[in-house]
Amino acid sequence: MRVQDSRDSGPNSRLAVVLVNTRNPLNIGAAARAMSNFGFFDLRLVNPYEAAFREAVSGVGAGAVLASARVFNDIASAVADCSLVVGATGLGNRTPQQALHRLERAGRLMRRHLAASRAALLFGSEKSGLANEEISHCHWLLRIPTRPEHESMNLAHAVAVCLYELIRKPSEARRMPEEAILASGEEVERFTRLLEEALQLSGHTDYTRATGASEKTHRLVRRLALREHDIHIWTGMLRQILWKLRNP
Amino acid sequence: MRVQDSRDSGPNSRLAVVLVNTRNPLNIGAAARAMSNFGFFDLRLVNPYEAAFREAVSGVGAGAVLASARVFNDIASAVADCSLVVGATGLGNRTPQQALHRLERAGRLMRRHLAASRAALLFGSEKSGLANEEISHCHWLLRIPTRPEHESMNLAHAVAVCLYELIRKPSEARRMPEEAILASGEEVERFTRLLEEALQLSGHTDYTRATGASEKTHRLVRRLALREHDIHIWTGMLRQILWKLRNP
Repeated sequence: MRVQDSRDSGPNSRLAVVLVNTRNPLNIGAAARAMSNFGFFDLRLVNPYEAAFREAVSGVGAGAVLASARVFNDIASAVADCSLVVGATGLGNRTPQQALHRLERAGRLMRRHLAASRAALLFGSEKSGLANEEISHCHWLLRIPTRPEHESMNLAHAVAVCLYELIRKPSEARRMPEEAILASGEEVERFTRLLEEALQLSGHTDYTRATGASEKTHRLVRRLALREHDIHIWTGMLRQILWKLRNP
Repeated sequence: MRVQDSRDSGPNSRLAVVLVNTRNPLNIGAAARAMSNFGFFDLRLVNPYEAAFREAVSGVGAGAVLASARVFNDIASAVADCSLVVGATGLGNRTPQQALHRLERAGRLMRRHLAASRAALLFGSEKSGLANEEISHCHWLLRIPTRPEHESMNLAHAVAVCLYELIRKPSEARRMPEEAILASGEEVERFTRLLEEALQLSGHTDYTRATGASEKTHRLVRRLALREHDIHIWTGMLRQILWKLRNP
């Protein structure tokens, strides 16, 4: 069962990913692929280094994103229809005038905005990120929480991580998985008896003659949390072993 | 001020990133870079397509990760010291026997485990992901919540997104930013008077003669939420304009 394609509506459709002064067409292709993976389709390029970006080969499966990508001469035109402009940046040595939010919080603020309005997320060139002039178009900045010692991310990695944060569902982190169907007490008991028989027949006397051996074996088997499907397989294996022990 | 390098201890040091049957050395380099960005240093390669992976050029700044990467012949050896093995996979058409968790939940489960024990995170080949035999080494699987229509991610993107989820701090999403220092009431009032004067001098009578014009102007200025630093600049601009209005 497939969920409906989210291309034409919803919060994702209100976000424009804007790549500024990107030098490498492969990075444009890779960013487009990450966009397509996470359901974002509005790619805008400001002054890309190579007009041949449409030939970007690494954009596996990202054809739709690249085909509809638009090229602009400056940031102002690229973000003209957006009421929020956010810049992705390493902090570097700059002390930005704008507020700088960690990605976790930035995602929250952007999701809130995208619920009703258009926003742009700007990424600077591979070499130097967003320049100060470019940053001046932003309402605020976001920072991916990388190590200070190695802050600079690959451009498409940064796009992928930011978009993941935007589609991330906090509730999923707390969702309990579908309960595995565990074997019934009767099945576990039958398996345990067979195991005890196998231990005795095999002469594992250190274990079977110790005080409380039976209780220990019961607890040991319970801790396996055997599933209904699996216990039949285990029981079959044990029966076969028992047969061989009795008929050597 | 730099935070301490987390290379030698802590939960991050207990995670091994295991790339299985990776074909393209560039992807190994890119994955290493993402690891370094997020502070993970234990890279293990199972049967990589090209032994020359150490020459991978795209691993900008990932030298330490690549230099200490280890090559194994099979998954069992690669994960021998790990008490949890998780496979990153697209669901594809498989019905996995193992539990499959969305990344949000997988991150939570892995963080819990990494608090005290070692874990491995497996990524399959670029072409086909993890094969069934490879998956059989995993305790459970994780899925990055990509679109069903375009599920397959670039290998290094997937590494980056998974590691981001692991270092992500949920508390950051709710953290209030440092309060911007707003201009004082006195400064705002002075600015508002200057603005009213400028409106009158410029002959903007539609506005200034309307009922409640002064109150409207006050509210208008308050909504700007002018900062202490900025209001001095705005006031200076307005004084200059007023001077020109008076001395045409």
